[in-house]
Amino acid sequence: MAKVCFTAVAAMGRNYGPFDENITLEFSKVITNIGHAYDPTSGIFTVKDAGYYYFSFSYQAPKTHMSGLSLAKNNSAIVKTFDHSKPGSQYCDNGGNSTILKLSAGDRVSVQLPAQCCVHAYEDVTTFSGFLIAGE
Amino acid sequence: MAKVCFTAVAAMGRNYGPFDENITLEFSKVITNIGHAYDPTSGIFTVKDAGYYYFSFSYQAPKTHMSGLSLAKNNSAIVKTFDHSKPGSQYCDNGGNSTILKLSAGDRVSVQLPAQCCVHAYEDVTTFSGFLIAGE
Amino acid sequence: MAKVCFTAVAAMGRNYGPFDENITLEFSKVITNIGHAYDPTSGIFTVKDAGYYYFSFSYQAPKTHMSGLSLAKNNSAIVKTFDHSKPGSQYCDNGGNSTILKLSAGDRVSVQLPAQCCVHAYEDVTTFSGFLIAGE
Repeated sequence: MAKVCFTAVAAMGRNYGPFDENITLEFSKVITNIGHAYDPTSGIFTVKDAGYYYFSFSYQAPKTHMSGLSLAKNNSAIVKTFDHSKPGSQYCDNGGNSTILKLSAGDRVSVQLPAQCCVHAYEDVTTFSGFLIAGE
Repeated sequence: MAKVCFTAVAAMGRNYGPFDENITLEFSKVITNIGHAYDPTSGIFTVKDAGYYYFSFSYQAPKTHMSGLSLAKNNSAIVKTFDHSKPGSQYCDNGGNSTILKLSAGDRVSVQLPAQCCVHAYEDVTTFSGFLIAGE
Repeated sequence: MAKVCFTAVAAMGRNYGPFDENITLEFSKVITNIGHAYDPTSGIFTVKDAGYYYFSFSYQAPKTHMSGLSLAKNNSAIVKTFDHSKPGSQYCDNGGNSTILKLSAGDRVSVQLPAQCCVHAYEDVTTFSGFLIAGE
């Protein structure tokens, strides 16, 4: 079986966002990237080996904004995590989620930052991981 | 090795619970279910292939109620996540946990919603995943 | 391929910490420990089989203190989760993170409780898991 696994960390500054539209979050700091299916310049994992994959993602965010992330397969959100803003608060929110997907060669998986949401992209708190569980 | 993996999402409405007793949470919306060991009508994963399994679960909940989930093996809670209510708050709580279990054929694994607890069962935020790491 | 997987739970009492220095958190209650690479008396996972490993950790903490955990490889923090204190609050914080690491025999992986941080070490809410995805 092919060996495919990666972890990358959002490292674009303390507060990242909000933006007016959904964007693909670039986890630019690579911890592990075996098989090089994850592209840290785009934030997109592109499947080379069909099979069953596990993905997990975690975030920290400032409570002064809406926060959240969605895991998307080919631009369709599959699982999400989010929270509302708490005006006046200087504290943090933490969240995350995970999913297993059956993927074919060419499928693209990414983590989206929804419009109007913000996350912390510093201190190695906002992360995206995935690996191949089994070939098809 | 057998291929066994699943992800399912709670999709019963915005607020689910509280109930007077612990219940098995039915993650009724199936994302992936290879091997069909997970039953979305009962919320129960019944082991066909003995081995070592990884499970993870995540939730979002309204802060107006107690919230939480427990992962149970044959009705014994193994790992938990929970939070207290914050009266008057319109905001969310997020939590989750994961565990690896050695399981035999016939063992049953599920996620329990404890008595008096509530979770959000909409927007693909409350999820349950598992897969076979290695056969026995 | 070697079978290596573990889950252990922090079970040292309701509030654990804060301490004046970073410490290695001892997850003393073992749920699963195949291969015995995890040592519950020290909290340290010592690699016997080189390869690619997945690790996840989750915590609950009292909001009356700073909270957080870091996953460390040979004493270097790789991924983190934390939150600030909320003076006067009796409520909880929940957080967690995960990472995939390429490890060689003798590498040591642990979860650190940062100086001045506190977590709940009861009720099976604060956990540490890992498993071998693939040999090198």
